[in-house]
Amino acid sequence: MQAELVMIGTELLLGEIVDTNAQYLARSLADCGINLYYKSTVGDNWVRIVEAVSRALARSDLVIISGGLGPTEDDLTRAAVAAVANRPLELNQEALAAIESYFQRRYGDAPMPANNRKQAYLPQGAIMVPNHWGTAPGFILELPGPKAIAALPGVPAELEPMFEQTVLPYCRLKFRGEVLVTKNLSFTGIGEAALEELVKDIILSQANPTVAPYASQGMVRIRITARAASEEEGLALVEAVVNQIAARTQPYLYSTSGQALEEVIGEQLTARGLTLALAESCTGGLVGNRITNVPGSSRYFLRGYVVYSNAAKVSDLGVKEETLSQHGAVSAETAREMAEGVRRKAGTDFGLAITGIAGPDGGTPEKPVGLVYIALAHQGDTIVERHQFSGARRQIKERSAQAALTMLWRQLR
Amino acid sequence: MQAELVMIGTELLLGEIVDTNAQYLARSLADCGINLYYKSTVGDNWVRIVEAVSRALARSDLVIISGGLGPTEDDLTRAAVAAVANRPLELNQEALAAIESYFQRRYGDAPMPANNRKQAYLPQGAIMVPNHWGTAPGFILELPGPKAIAALPGVPAELEPMFEQTVLPYCRLKFRGEVLVTKNLSFTGIGEAALEELVKDIILSQANPTVAPYASQGMVRIRITARAASEEEGLALVEAVVNQIAARTQPYLYSTSGQALEEVIGEQLTARGLTLALAESCTGGLVGNRITNVPGSSRYFLRGYVVYSNAAKVSDLGVKEETLSQHGAVSAETAREMAEGVRRKAGTDFGLAITGIAGPDGGTPEKPVGLVYIALAHQGDTIVERHQFSGARRQIKERSAQAALTMLWRQLR
Repeated sequence: MQAELVMIGTELLLGEIVDTNAQYLARSLADCGINLYYKSTVGDNWVRIVEAVSRALARSDLVIISGGLGPTEDDLTRAAVAAVANRPLELNQEALAAIESYFQRRYGDAPMPANNRKQAYLPQGAIMVPNHWGTAPGFILELPGPKAIAALPGVPAELEPMFEQTVLPYCRLKFRGEVLVTKNLSFTGIGEAALEELVKDIILSQANPTVAPYASQGMVRIRITARAASEEEGLALVEAVVNQIAARTQPYLYSTSGQALEEVIGEQLTARGLTLALAESCTGGLVGNRITNVPGSSRYFLRGYVVYSNAAKVSDLGVKEETLSQHGAVSAETAREMAEGVRRKAGTDFGLAITGIAGPDGGTPEKPVGLVYIALAHQGDTIVERHQFSGARRQIKERSAQAALTMLWRQLR
Repeated sequence: MQAELVMIGTELLLGEIVDTNAQYLARSLADCGINLYYKSTVGDNWVRIVEAVSRALARSDLVIISGGLGPTEDDLTRAAVAAVANRPLELNQEALAAIESYFQRRYGDAPMPANNRKQAYLPQGAIMVPNHWGTAPGFILELPGPKAIAALPGVPAELEPMFEQTVLPYCRLKFRGEVLVTKNLSFTGIGEAALEELVKDIILSQANPTVAPYASQGMVRIRITARAASEEEGLALVEAVVNQIAARTQPYLYSTSGQALEEVIGEQLTARGLTLALAESCTGGLVGNRITNVPGSSRYFLRGYVVYSNAAKVSDLGVKEETLSQHGAVSAETAREMAEGVRRKAGTDFGLAITGIAGPDGGTPEKPVGLVYIALAHQGDTIVERHQFSGARRQIKERSAQAALTMLWRQLR
């Protein structure tokens, strides 16, 4: 079956809020194997709402509408659905009772505003979807095809439980479908294009499962999605391709279950009883922040130093004055002394250090903005990497942090 | 003029990411007076992309497309726009040079993957939109009407500056309209509902400018937007309301120009020649990361300590063993000694310290998850605040960091 979303609300087109409902609905539909091919957003405008709902109904089996069910003049969803479906609006007694009972629970004996009565008028034949979290009842209208329109209020705290408790069970009952099984492979230390080159033939030869690389928020992923009659069958299809891809991309593949890189590192450190200390200059605490986003990180992460000044590098980490004066704060030598110094001082197994020029100022022809040295000290052995990153200040910080974590992850394998 | 958004990407329809681009673009268009009536989302599917772009072009003056400009097989935007506009794809030399130069800056002499060359093929006659933040050039294609299609990559860190620096100036030049003048007031230390209560009568009495409170990513803002015939007239309308609101909300209002809290703090420290050191426990480096997101922060931020273990608190900051054993690591006493210790050790004007329980483990009935102490030491005077935050681990870290920066900001006023 094929579903489609119509999101209604002028605030969505003014950019005043992020449309988290769209993501929630999309993910929920994907999780239960319902295809979503289109999502449209229109404002609180009669002509455009009717147009969007008509088009959606013409090409999809299930149209899910969010928003426009409030009590005010610009809440047009009920009337628009009635117009598209050619059914009159009727006072739905069940809906009226639900609204009145909500008001009583919430405001006691205070009289209900007349406007709210409007919310109980639903297209003839609609099934009321109860809303225990607000005034606006939703509804499902079944139409020939078989097709259906489900309308839910735009408030996420109302939409989500109403979808979960009523619309989703309805879909499962009415439209039995295939199962969609998805796995995400996460990579680090390789770009999207280079990764695709490695597995291009696999991508092109696959129809089920589909294989799609994508980049988001500094990570590169490959998503493998299979359609099947059962969860087991889908998983078997996906796993075969996962193994095929993993064999070729092993040096970059850090997770097949959607984990963050810092979580994978945390598991490795915990499993092997190893500890970590950080010395950050240009990243300013970002690596520590990522490491400590993982619950239980205090087991292996003991301390970090943000040595933003030269004086701090010397006094906190024992970097030599002459190293700084001869090679500069951004140099392989300084990175090495920072990593070894922090490891010694904290008494940890690993010392990880980052020093670089995040910009926009501070670059020179020899040491341009984006030049970053990363050093990892471990049992008397220290490795140093030189990177030249591009981008604005925050991107350089993010890429440096990612490269530092990648270095540690590689060492831990 | 009327614009329309077409967001491309299967990941958007699988609900894997929240579409922040849509909000960014919608708000930017609103801010410069361009009407947005429709937004559509389709996956990486040839038929549906061509259909969505054709429809958009038929009913709107400017179609902005996000996504599908990557180097891989499922990046179809270039070819789809060429098909809709009936223009052949051509190798754009300027785009090729830009991609090659990006690769050289980023990877030195390593060969550019063949795939990336594909990104330089643009519809005939297209104006290349430079991308200094990634490989995918965007483009603007002018069509009879006059109409135009602007295509930008889906990565927010690329889309946003490209839109700001190229597409927006283009729109202003080509499509003149009424001016929309907007100011954002940013608040800290107060919730959205409480803030709205303070200015409710102003919100309700205004039609032009409009006054809208909104909360996003832990910040509370009020947006004031006026329509006017000229920039000056609009600004005068906005300023009058800004002054009215500012008079009532002064203790919480930290910016009227969209600055981040850490930028405001940075300006104050710089102007007064003051310096800062940080001692972070539960925030793990997040406060340092925010402080160092500001260019030039090395002028006032000298160093930070992430004292995740008790040993680090003692040896790096001089917290007394007996304070830890009597009061615990999460206590007003420990926070105070951390702040005073870091200030003394770094020789700075301010020492700011955070210690708390970020969870999900480690809470007790007396000291539950979310209990956080923040201390600010300054010239022999130390203030300590106790907070009880709710939320998941990352939210508690973020709320702690925000509260710590708020404390410093209040002290600096």
